Amino acid sequence: MSKSTVGNFFEDFSLGQIIKHATPRTVTAGDVALYTGLFGPRFAVQSSDAFAQAIGYPRAPLDDLLVFHIVFGKTVPDVSLNAVANLGYAACRFLRPVYPGDTLSAVSEVIGLKENSNRKTGIVYVRTIGLQQDGGTVLDYVRWVMVRKRSETAPAPAELVPALPDALDPATLGHACPLIDAYDFALAGSAHRFADYAVGEKIDHVDGITVEEAEHQIASRLYQNNARIHFNLFAEAKGRFGRRLIYGGHVISLARALSFNGLANAFHIAAINGGRHVSPLFAGDTVFAWSEVLAGSELSGRDDVGALRLRTVATKDRPCADFPLRQGDDYDPAVILDLDYWALMPR
Amino acid sequence: MSKSTVGNFFEDFSLGQIIKHATPRTVTAGDVALYTGLFGPRFAVQSSDAFAQAIGYPRAPLDDLLVFHIVFGKTVPDVSLNAVANLGYAACRFLRPVYPGDTLSAVSEVIGLKENSNRKTGIVYVRTIGLQQDGGTVLDYVRWVMVRKRSETAPAPAELVPALPDALDPATLGHACPLIDAYDFALAGSAHRFADYAVGEKIDHVDGITVEEAEHQIASRLYQNNARIHFNLFAEAKGRFGRRLIYGGHVISLARALSFNGLANAFHIAAINGGRHVSPLFAGDTVFAWSEVLAGSELSGRDDVGALRLRTVATKDRPCADFPLRQGDDYDPAVILDLDYWALMPR
Amino acid sequence: MSKSTVGNFFEDFSLGQIIKHATPRTVTAGDVALYTGLFGPRFAVQSSDAFAQAIGYPRAPLDDLLVFHIVFGKTVPDVSLNAVANLGYAACRFLRPVYPGDTLSAVSEVIGLKENSNRKTGIVYVRTIGLQQDGGTVLDYVRWVMVRKRSETAPAPAELVPALPDALDPATLGHACPLIDAYDFALAGSAHRFADYAVGEKIDHVDGITVEEAEHQIASRLYQNNARIHFNLFAEAKGRFGRRLIYGGHVISLARALSFNGLANAFHIAAINGGRHVSPLFAGDTVFAWSEVLAGSELSGRDDVGALRLRTVATKDRPCADFPLRQGDDYDPAVILDLDYWALMPR
Repeated sequence: MSKSTVGNFFEDFSLGQIIKHATPRTVTAGDVALYTGLFGPRFAVQSSDAFAQAIGYPRAPLDDLLVFHIVFGKTVPDVSLNAVANLGYAACRFLRPVYPGDTLSAVSEVIGLKENSNRKTGIVYVRTIGLQQDGGTVLDYVRWVMVRKRSETAPAPAELVPALPDALDPATLGHACPLIDAYDFALAGSAHRFADYAVGEKIDHVDGITVEEAEHQIASRLYQNNARIHFNLFAEAKGRFGRRLIYGGHVISLARALSFNGLANAFHIAAINGGRHVSPLFAGDTVFAWSEVLAGSELSGRDDVGALRLRTVATKDRPCADFPLRQGDDYDPAVILDLDYWALMPR
Repeated sequence: MSKSTVGNFFEDFSLGQIIKHATPRTVTAGDVALYTGLFGPRFAVQSSDAFAQAIGYPRAPLDDLLVFHIVFGKTVPDVSLNAVANLGYAACRFLRPVYPGDTLSAVSEVIGLKENSNRKTGIVYVRTIGLQQDGGTVLDYVRWVMVRKRSETAPAPAELVPALPDALDPATLGHACPLIDAYDFALAGSAHRFADYAVGEKIDHVDGITVEEAEHQIASRLYQNNARIHFNLFAEAKGRFGRRLIYGGHVISLARALSFNGLANAFHIAAINGGRHVSPLFAGDTVFAWSEVLAGSELSGRDDVGALRLRTVATKDRPCADFPLRQGDDYDPAVILDLDYWALMPR
Repeated sequence: MSKSTVGNFFEDFSLGQIIKHATPRTVTAGDVALYTGLFGPRFAVQSSDAFAQAIGYPRAPLDDLLVFHIVFGKTVPDVSLNAVANLGYAACRFLRPVYPGDTLSAVSEVIGLKENSNRKTGIVYVRTIGLQQDGGTVLDYVRWVMVRKRSETAPAPAELVPALPDALDPATLGHACPLIDAYDFALAGSAHRFADYAVGEKIDHVDGITVEEAEHQIASRLYQNNARIHFNLFAEAKGRFGRRLIYGGHVISLARALSFNGLANAFHIAAINGGRHVSPLFAGDTVFAWSEVLAGSELSGRDDVGALRLRTVATKDRPCADFPLRQGDDYDPAVILDLDYWALMPR
């Protein structure tokens, strides 16, 4: 038997299967610096130990998306090396803050399987849990992905498509955020609080960031995400796109960093309700973003922060002053990401 | 009112205005590593805790320019998002060493305003102070920048052009440098001390470094500098240069790293007397540098170090064996930076 | 005398000469993060403090190759600025683990000299020792390099070509590895132990990684390796290759990271018997790798780990499913690296 692997195919998964993913990862101030260099986030809580301590954290926590990407990266060798497409995320909750020095690992359960009618591919649903060194859960989420079959003639598994919530109940949010106090709005970069945002309000995040090959490769390797489509020009030059595809999570992080201009006090992502990578992103493209406030909710038992449900839309080579989203029944062709999440903001 | 901003225009500034800049920033060993990877400095004091401790620091301090860039970066969203040109720096003093774990923030005061005769732009002078977590000043400097007006018809403010010194008095230098001792010249890479440098002496720094888009973008984001001209190819392709412009501070850091070859013991920048970005730098260009000793001064009350006043000139695509500077009344077209500063060197 | 240097030429070296290299370097979690971002290694011991502690390390040690590159980098300004070719390495032993916070420095001895018959170049052999802050040796190795003469008429030195071992004796290996225990194979990513590998077995590491200019430049600067051929497009555009040459050590690190797929439990490089950079690598090329098990050896007095002698071959733009190596008497033109080393693996 070969010592190396080309990854799992659709027929290698079974319902209820538990996958303990490899390579536990201690996160450090080095990861934080590199993440800052790659995306340029300016949220005060994650940038400053002094600011974080003043409001109630023991020190600056890691950016929520950096935690997500590291946990996600661990699942790639087992789940999506033979993916045709990442179809979606749902029910992603951030349950504990993560600090430099913590060690993250990941375990997934296969919660759904559905062969496609062409018998060449199938959809795999996994619920993944990100764990801290003490076994506590920092993150959980569901992801579904279309995976190639090794053989068209392999029998189809029993079909199960899991029921997934459209959005997380705000009553379940906020576990990763301490009771906050003494929040300095000037130092944070905006005077706008939770109550200043209205449902339906749209915000253009104004700026654009062009992505380079070196940048997305460094980011994906930092997460130990080894999906070949991000790294192997020799193979991808002959593939579907003719070039390397940028990890979808890269777009999420860019959009989040851009969203500081308009959402500077949305300091913590409490949950991701769903995300769709509408179109691929390639090096040389410039990413823009805008957001809409979908809902707002107080959190039971606390009056320090409220939760804004936000839709953040990212585009490529298309400024967002007019909030591009649809074109007829389809997405506007410039749209690359449609993300729905709950962010916490001081009241 | 829009939650996002396109930045301040000339008519938004007023004399005496105090701006508390956003996003305090804890600097870490991660920032140091990334700075090393981006510029390759080899000065022993900033590279080695052991070397720094042997000469009197508690541990290796951050590179002075890394501190400068982080403080500078904080001012960009408030001061220069609508800049046409960065015109100059003056009176920059490094007043305290900064170590990993320190948190930096920045406050600026508008100390000068002058509308240009075309009424489309004006010059804004700010004095910026970089602060440590305890409120102490680590850095101060004056910068002036030409900023667009939102409207040509906006009334001109009272004109005030501040008086600025040509150079800092050496009697005011050295606060960020402890009394040093036991300096190992072999380990530092050069036997040349303060007294070995003669006024008028010119030094070719020999090497050249080609800059990539990913590198300057990562650097500027590390400083949380969000000036769009560095990042947004979509917009800049239609702009003045047809491409992304590299942050001027990137050139200063490259020139400083190159200057190690000839100035290995000039371990600390005590002050920047003035700096001029003579020409723009773009990705693909190769940066070279040379220096001239403008003056030398002992520091009152201490015999451990002396101050060399240096002019470091950077060029693009032009080696510096013949010390290019002028061509007739103008700068040589290859010159991109003309920097005047005081560096400390062991006696 | 000029304060800057263009580096040593062949006639500047003498047998028995001791060179204390400049710039001691404190390694940090920042260096580790950047190394992870640049190469994507997934070995559990170096990724996780928790995993490393569970098996007997005080915390996660630095990747062995990161230590090698930093020590190597220090020798470049003194040994190889005027190198025509890096000819080989031998007798490289890793003698102590290195942790964030340690300070590394390097000393070399010239142990061989041989002028070439064209009198334009000569071969310099150096034995280099990497030291920790307490003076202990973390690494030693021999390297030989072809260096230009300043003048063809300079007299040739007495010729001495040192005897070098083909491979290190396994009885001398393992000093940098504590007695290990409680190794979690699932978390490490593979069930394959020392005894599962057979001499003569070949492993295709499957994946490919395309290299960007920014990546290899950042890596080489991180090691403070200032060899101009890696950085100076202006000069190299007119040179032998017409472009920047990638540091040979970059290929070793890429091949090592790729080798995780098939050698996930080969967690520590105990020694490098020899290495040959068969062909140059340039940005835009995609690197693949395969390995062959050359030998296996138990380590005297310990039953926790065994040593595998591995040959890892890297190619460019050539997948390795058929293990490319030779073509007639020569290397296959796609081969860029032929590396022979001892790796430790749990028994």
